[in-house]
Amino acid sequence: MSNQLEGKKIKVGVLGATGTVGQRFITLLSEHPFFVLHAFGASARSAGKTYAKAVNWKQTTPIPAGAREMLVYECTPDKFADCAIVFSGLDADAAGDIEAAFRDAELVVFSNAKNYRRDPLVPLIVPLVNASHLSIVHKQRLQHNLKKGYIVTNANCSTTAFVVPLSALEKAFGPIETCMVTTMQAISGAGYPGVASLDIMDNIVPYISGEEEKIEWETLKILGGITEEDDGSQSFEMHSKTPLRVSASCNRVPVIDGHTECVSIRFHKRPPPSPQQVREAMVAYTPDVQTIGCPSAPRQTIFVHEEPDRPQPRLDRYFQNGAGVSVGRVRQCPVLDIKFVVLANNVSIGAATSSIINAEAAVLKGFVDI
Amino acid sequence: MSNQLEGKKIKVGVLGATGTVGQRFITLLSEHPFFVLHAFGASARSAGKTYAKAVNWKQTTPIPAGAREMLVYECTPDKFADCAIVFSGLDADAAGDIEAAFRDAELVVFSNAKNYRRDPLVPLIVPLVNASHLSIVHKQRLQHNLKKGYIVTNANCSTTAFVVPLSALEKAFGPIETCMVTTMQAISGAGYPGVASLDIMDNIVPYISGEEEKIEWETLKILGGITEEDDGSQSFEMHSKTPLRVSASCNRVPVIDGHTECVSIRFHKRPPPSPQQVREAMVAYTPDVQTIGCPSAPRQTIFVHEEPDRPQPRLDRYFQNGAGVSVGRVRQCPVLDIKFVVLANNVSIGAATSSIINAEAAVLKGFVDI
Amino acid sequence: MSNQLEGKKIKVGVLGATGTVGQRFITLLSEHPFFVLHAFGASARSAGKTYAKAVNWKQTTPIPAGAREMLVYECTPDKFADCAIVFSGLDADAAGDIEAAFRDAELVVFSNAKNYRRDPLVPLIVPLVNASHLSIVHKQRLQHNLKKGYIVTNANCSTTAFVVPLSALEKAFGPIETCMVTTMQAISGAGYPGVASLDIMDNIVPYISGEEEKIEWETLKILGGITEEDDGSQSFEMHSKTPLRVSASCNRVPVIDGHTECVSIRFHKRPPPSPQQVREAMVAYTPDVQTIGCPSAPRQTIFVHEEPDRPQPRLDRYFQNGAGVSVGRVRQCPVLDIKFVVLANNVSIGAATSSIINAEAAVLKGFVDI
Amino acid sequence: MSNQLEGKKIKVGVLGATGTVGQRFITLLSEHPFFVLHAFGASARSAGKTYAKAVNWKQTTPIPAGAREMLVYECTPDKFADCAIVFSGLDADAAGDIEAAFRDAELVVFSNAKNYRRDPLVPLIVPLVNASHLSIVHKQRLQHNLKKGYIVTNANCSTTAFVVPLSALEKAFGPIETCMVTTMQAISGAGYPGVASLDIMDNIVPYISGEEEKIEWETLKILGGITEEDDGSQSFEMHSKTPLRVSASCNRVPVIDGHTECVSIRFHKRPPPSPQQVREAMVAYTPDVQTIGCPSAPRQTIFVHEEPDRPQPRLDRYFQNGAGVSVGRVRQCPVLDIKFVVLANNVSIGAATSSIINAEAAVLKGFVDI
Repeated sequence: MSNQLEGKKIKVGVLGATGTVGQRFITLLSEHPFFVLHAFGASARSAGKTYAKAVNWKQTTPIPAGAREMLVYECTPDKFADCAIVFSGLDADAAGDIEAAFRDAELVVFSNAKNYRRDPLVPLIVPLVNASHLSIVHKQRLQHNLKKGYIVTNANCSTTAFVVPLSALEKAFGPIETCMVTTMQAISGAGYPGVASLDIMDNIVPYISGEEEKIEWETLKILGGITEEDDGSQSFEMHSKTPLRVSASCNRVPVIDGHTECVSIRFHKRPPPSPQQVREAMVAYTPDVQTIGCPSAPRQTIFVHEEPDRPQPRLDRYFQNGAGVSVGRVRQCPVLDIKFVVLANNVSIGAATSSIINAEAAVLKGFVDI
Repeated sequence: MSNQLEGKKIKVGVLGATGTVGQRFITLLSEHPFFVLHAFGASARSAGKTYAKAVNWKQTTPIPAGAREMLVYECTPDKFADCAIVFSGLDADAAGDIEAAFRDAELVVFSNAKNYRRDPLVPLIVPLVNASHLSIVHKQRLQHNLKKGYIVTNANCSTTAFVVPLSALEKAFGPIETCMVTTMQAISGAGYPGVASLDIMDNIVPYISGEEEKIEWETLKILGGITEEDDGSQSFEMHSKTPLRVSASCNRVPVIDGHTECVSIRFHKRPPPSPQQVREAMVAYTPDVQTIGCPSAPRQTIFVHEEPDRPQPRLDRYFQNGAGVSVGRVRQCPVLDIKFVVLANNVSIGAATSSIINAEAAVLKGFVDI
Repeated sequence: MSNQLEGKKIKVGVLGATGTVGQRFITLLSEHPFFVLHAFGASARSAGKTYAKAVNWKQTTPIPAGAREMLVYECTPDKFADCAIVFSGLDADAAGDIEAAFRDAELVVFSNAKNYRRDPLVPLIVPLVNASHLSIVHKQRLQHNLKKGYIVTNANCSTTAFVVPLSALEKAFGPIETCMVTTMQAISGAGYPGVASLDIMDNIVPYISGEEEKIEWETLKILGGITEEDDGSQSFEMHSKTPLRVSASCNRVPVIDGHTECVSIRFHKRPPPSPQQVREAMVAYTPDVQTIGCPSAPRQTIFVHEEPDRPQPRLDRYFQNGAGVSVGRVRQCPVLDIKFVVLANNVSIGAATSSIINAEAAVLKGFVDI
Repeated sequence: MSNQLEGKKIKVGVLGATGTVGQRFITLLSEHPFFVLHAFGASARSAGKTYAKAVNWKQTTPIPAGAREMLVYECTPDKFADCAIVFSGLDADAAGDIEAAFRDAELVVFSNAKNYRRDPLVPLIVPLVNASHLSIVHKQRLQHNLKKGYIVTNANCSTTAFVVPLSALEKAFGPIETCMVTTMQAISGAGYPGVASLDIMDNIVPYISGEEEKIEWETLKILGGITEEDDGSQSFEMHSKTPLRVSASCNRVPVIDGHTECVSIRFHKRPPPSPQQVREAMVAYTPDVQTIGCPSAPRQTIFVHEEPDRPQPRLDRYFQNGAGVSVGRVRQCPVLDIKFVVLANNVSIGAATSSIINAEAAVLKGFVDI
């Protein structure tokens, strides 16, 4: 990789820089081996201030020294013209127009927002699963008459946790037919201020608006494939080797970081793999972002716990600096085939870390002009 | 009921009186319309002390005035000879021998312990479901050569929440074939001291030893029937109109009281009932403990919430003084037929309140000599 | 009391009816022996709706049946003309103008808002301490050219906890000279949505804006006296038998309800009373709202715990239905004279319950035309 | 330092290796620049197992690779004969005899246990305050007829937080006369399993057995001096330039790690320093463990926050990898002179990190034969 990039530093911008996801982008990018923070965008209220003045910093590490005195701009493409890549931590109500404007200005946008996830020209990428979907950006550029600009999205945090082991299992054993998942999601998934303390202390909220629909739909796109059409162009196809039915039940729980999910699946393959075969397939799973050397990708993608009471969010959310996924309790399901518990850090691989690995993959695969 | 009992007060004892469940028994029984606290049993360490001295009281209401100065005895039947009923809040490691000794001494025992739940002669009763199973005590007495004594158990707290709506639905729509349930269980379900704070603050523990097996097995017994045999005797039969397959995933969450469970079911009936029909059947459900006038039975057994984000343990666990069950989010399941969320108060209907309603039903149905 | 009122029901209104404090007013007043809910006021957004539609109900008991279908009005005096008393749970940004308008319309306002607490004509009353300050309303009416209308405020929730034992001790042992108090305040003190869960889970916030100043100032007014002036009128005088110096440090803690405060005091009296004398004075303390029979006043004002680890908010906040105060750990202070811990329920005696007892005292003492 | 030690690795042992403090020692020492883990001691139950088998690991990072397969021994000196230093994370009930036996076997013990803190020959060292007290070990050896062995203790976690700013202020402004401190202490301070979740969720426990006495006494020893006696030997003297009176109120709060303390002090010096002078003195404070280059000492000892709502345990406990102390809200006290809030990480500088810095100082100052 250092060979490929020959020590180049790639200038990047952050949109929504003062928000929760923006703070994570800045924390992670401040120590990145080849990205270098160059421009920050936020709302008009913050524009013109230094970052240290504009932000209500909520991370457990201090504001990176290099970021403190950087000026915050409004989110207009001209201020980001020198950036090879722009990361977006914008809220959904602002992301739609701004990200489109940035793309139209020939900027490359890696977005954590939900707005373009369902766009058939925009890849929806969980880097530990389907970085191969990056290739669709050619068609996106074509349709928008662009030479360089495009948008890539990453998935919802609760979807991310869950598709990584599914991908490992489909790779090893072929299509999954049925999946039931019950999530127990951390409060940080709702942003800041997000969940009121009076709503969640000593409590469970068995509902997160739109979340179940996101899981049930995004999973099909992420685990879907890419079809070469007759004219040489590419399209997505939703998961369709066999129809995959997903049923999700989403809950907010009093946990700060880390989404825990109870999953039960049925394979198309009969007889289905044993729990031990499932464990082995998960341990062996090596997505291509790991193979091509994305520096923020985990060294081990899925850790499989043997202890009966793991994974636990407080103990396991820091695995691989939050970029890996932890699985435990792989066992037979009396109704479907296999049950297990999966945990992923929603503020790392479930958000900013995904965007960053996606961007790393885009650079290493040649989808970014640098 | 007051007619039936003609104002009689029925003397009752409490085993395990200083424990968590015992404290609940004493709180509830101190204000009971026809039971009156008469004898307390605990370990040798507590015996000989007044209750106020022996107990490490952890309830949010004070020790009932009448209980403070009562003496605590060891758990031997002679001290309880005047009690028509004995409630057991004993731990499983003590309950086996002590409850058997009490039964053999012709005492009637209503137990919250797990030891005899699988005994084919011992009813396992969730009062809002299968109080009719009380009739099996005739056979229990017969086999043990007893005139009066018997043991009745109530179910595990996580099973209790879940079988009440299942029973309502089987009554309305016939057999359920498949049930998937993921529980989010309160810390009080583990007793005191129970769960270490370092294990559960800002955390989920996706495992409770033996809990999934209890749910998967107890459900079949509770929803099963009673067969008249050729010799006129009765036997249990496990749920068998059609085979019912149950898959449970159990989690401990940082909630003080109240178990929340995400349930998905498939009916035998095709086409299955709609969500609205399911809601109506739950609202209409009236178990016989309500009909015969058990004073601790809820006036409304199942409350069905319309708001999308309910039930929640902190807001709904006090419904019907903890004796009722709250359901919400009744909706179609993309995989099975119907999904919903159910909440029950594990320290009330999930424990002491169940034993008490069971005992009330036994009195009102003539199974207790008074 | 029933004699005095001869079974009369007194119509009352609630301003800010949909807010947190308003919900508490309505819960408590729906079962009141002589107040009857008559009119609800809220913001323009809620006006015209039924209460059940307008409110985002967050109490653990259901909306009182009688309140569900009551219409919500804007906060203008004409809709409340039939009310003998209006309770205000308004936020500070609205309370100033609205409460003045209500008073000017000859309505009697008992307010939980902070706006008029420092007004020298408005009593600041913690009912367990200084209900005698009600008499100042004569002068308030005079200065505002009113016959009936006036405003009475109750204290900040953290002040309330703390002045009750101070009042008991000053009554028994004379003036206190110095008081240091460190508070650990519940999240419900900040209203809803109030404190973000990300700010308080697994955390302490050692700052509550304006809170320390409130404690340090309100204490002097509440423990102050009333002076008869030469012209027969009355004025407040701040605590001044000897100067009382108060130093407060306020913290927000992850507790739902109940403010816990560590207090250390120095008496003027030398030698100071012993811890045992302090405990006895607290137990014996009987404020006049208790003597004159205010129905919402606690039967026991201060409970003094002997166990070393009490009071605790989760176990003791329901003492006397939240209207009493719990004290524990009375012991010598190596620096001042006496240290103790005090706990009060901030949503009961620290808010709505105080306003209601104040109103009950005003009725029973003849300050309300009924 | 690397010069001094010339790249030497110093073998160290850990007593109580499977406990909470032991796990911290092993985590920290596994990456230490000059200490190398050599022997582990625990109870008979663990002896003979590999560390990975013996321990119930509760850290958020995995067991260090080098430690997993190390054998655990019973705590007898012969197994530790090759260790230049032994760290003790033993519980108080075991530490007394075992640590004495190790010292008598000529081993150097750095202990986190409380047993020898009050021994007039044993230094009680908070490394950010009084590493100079190490010199008393000469007398300890002399009295015990030892050539190499001695015991050094570090302070209780709640004392540690509080003496660091006091030391900074005494150094700058001379003696402090009076100190009032109210602590809000994390659950991890009680070890594992420690505090039951039912005792601390949604709760405060205003009592920690023995804790207030420890703070009030240990502070005097730590801030005390060393007297050269006529015979050339040294003795401790308790803080006595002027008498220092300390009053502590200790509370357990639902925070995982990090003790927060509200402090108010009075200086001997009149007029006292201003808040700004106090802030500057804290920022400037540089204890000698920093000067002499102890590798685990913080680079900045006290961070002084300007924001009004800091320090907060969840955000600030990782400052300087847990080795530094955070102060905020420095302001005037209406009763004494100055108030502030201090936060320290009880599992780092409040426990294992203190022992390790003490040992580093002992090595660098020549008190350990290597």
